[in-house]
Amino acid sequence: MEFVERYNGSGLLIEVEKILYEFKGVQHIQIFQTKSFGKMLVLDGKIQLTEKDESFYHEMLVHPAMLMHENPEKVLVIGGGDGGAVREVLKHDPKEVVMVEIDENVVKACKEYIGIDRGALEDPRVKVLFEDGLEFVKSCKDKFDVIIVDGTDPNPISQALISSEFYRDCAKICDYFVTQSQSPFAQPDYFKSIYKNARFKNKAVYLGFVPTYPHGLWSYLIASDRREIVLDLNVIKERFENRKIETVYYTPEVHISAFALPRWIVNLIS
Amino acid sequence: MEFVERYNGSGLLIEVEKILYEFKGVQHIQIFQTKSFGKMLVLDGKIQLTEKDESFYHEMLVHPAMLMHENPEKVLVIGGGDGGAVREVLKHDPKEVVMVEIDENVVKACKEYIGIDRGALEDPRVKVLFEDGLEFVKSCKDKFDVIIVDGTDPNPISQALISSEFYRDCAKICDYFVTQSQSPFAQPDYFKSIYKNARFKNKAVYLGFVPTYPHGLWSYLIASDRREIVLDLNVIKERFENRKIETVYYTPEVHISAFALPRWIVNLIS
Repeated sequence: MEFVERYNGSGLLIEVEKILYEFKGVQHIQIFQTKSFGKMLVLDGKIQLTEKDESFYHEMLVHPAMLMHENPEKVLVIGGGDGGAVREVLKHDPKEVVMVEIDENVVKACKEYIGIDRGALEDPRVKVLFEDGLEFVKSCKDKFDVIIVDGTDPNPISQALISSEFYRDCAKICDYFVTQSQSPFAQPDYFKSIYKNARFKNKAVYLGFVPTYPHGLWSYLIASDRREIVLDLNVIKERFENRKIETVYYTPEVHISAFALPRWIVNLIS
Repeated sequence: MEFVERYNGSGLLIEVEKILYEFKGVQHIQIFQTKSFGKMLVLDGKIQLTEKDESFYHEMLVHPAMLMHENPEKVLVIGGGDGGAVREVLKHDPKEVVMVEIDENVVKACKEYIGIDRGALEDPRVKVLFEDGLEFVKSCKDKFDVIIVDGTDPNPISQALISSEFYRDCAKICDYFVTQSQSPFAQPDYFKSIYKNARFKNKAVYLGFVPTYPHGLWSYLIASDRREIVLDLNVIKERFENRKIETVYYTPEVHISAFALPRWIVNLIS
């Protein structure tokens, strides 16, 4: 059996051994046992993660922003129902993590059938709210050291998470903001919209390989109204070592290097 | 119509409008008109290039080695029958380029149906030989500033191009040697063999995105018995600017950054 995710004129095919779970609620949730990638989560027909490469994505989403902050104690994760982002955040030993996920079914299904949170969502420092992230930040009176947006591809539910209003609301309540920003190769229009709408004082795009995302190339946008984008290897290295973080993909050198963009990507956002 | 290249438990699907050329000789050559990637060359069922992303590959194969050399006048290209590597080499204004390609049919088909060499193979400084690259370097009395190996996936024909004997023969006759070194993600065993067999005094692996190669991640190995691996941004930048090279993907910053390897890749070759 095969699962195929289609892009524009191409597609990724994954050999599947069986369907472990399927549910149509707010989103169409599918969990597969694959032949070579472990378990795989698909939402509305799009691959969200496989056990084999989810750490490539979650580490690159989380560690750059967390290490740019000298002491990230309070962190907000929007989306990320699989728990992978929160798992990586906890490696920095924060005091409090709030996760705001709109779809409780994703959290339940991932916990039962995949388990990549490895207990992170039960950690006493973690509070999980099933709410709309957009509404949460709009009315939020709290401040966060880091906000991490781990949303799905823009769709009727998540479209608002790439709006300039949402970004403005986030900018007011955090030091560092980071969001996944889609594939510059397969989805250049989304990528450009995110960059354009993110009207922060400082912002930068960085890249990572995620083999099961469209054509393997993924982007992230980090931004701040108050802080600089930190690309000093020694600073990052010292924090990384002091916090004793273990990773599969991320290294401080990879962090710095991820900000060097191929010319065609620079052109997309110039 | 669809073309599918299968990997281990996955595959890339490309929508095809028509078959432009097909021939079974030394290799099975297919040239397709695709829906979103322009023309596409497939050898023995494996995608070699598409017009949309071939420059990502050819620029990263050629420019790092050419720019590490202060004055690359004499260059040997082994394989690369499509002419893309030679096209990039000519941007450095060398005095002489020798291309040794085993399969004349590939050169003819690419010239007639794709044309990415953009006339490079007719340049008076370029000599094209239809020979076995292995035999050529074994008996070669010449010296080259740079040797570039643009081979196919290891198969009965190209297997010898990842042997330690071939690498030894190349080391003797050049300052810098570079070869594509397969996908560390989809083909970790080939990747490790290439690294292990390349017993040069200095060597390093670097990475690039090639969307139509397996899962988008591709690797290259650069090596030398006589020279250092140059990763000084200012040196590379100055040469890049002096030579007035225009690129789609490559920048000096991307060059330096490409050598920062994700931890799991470092582990593969440690």
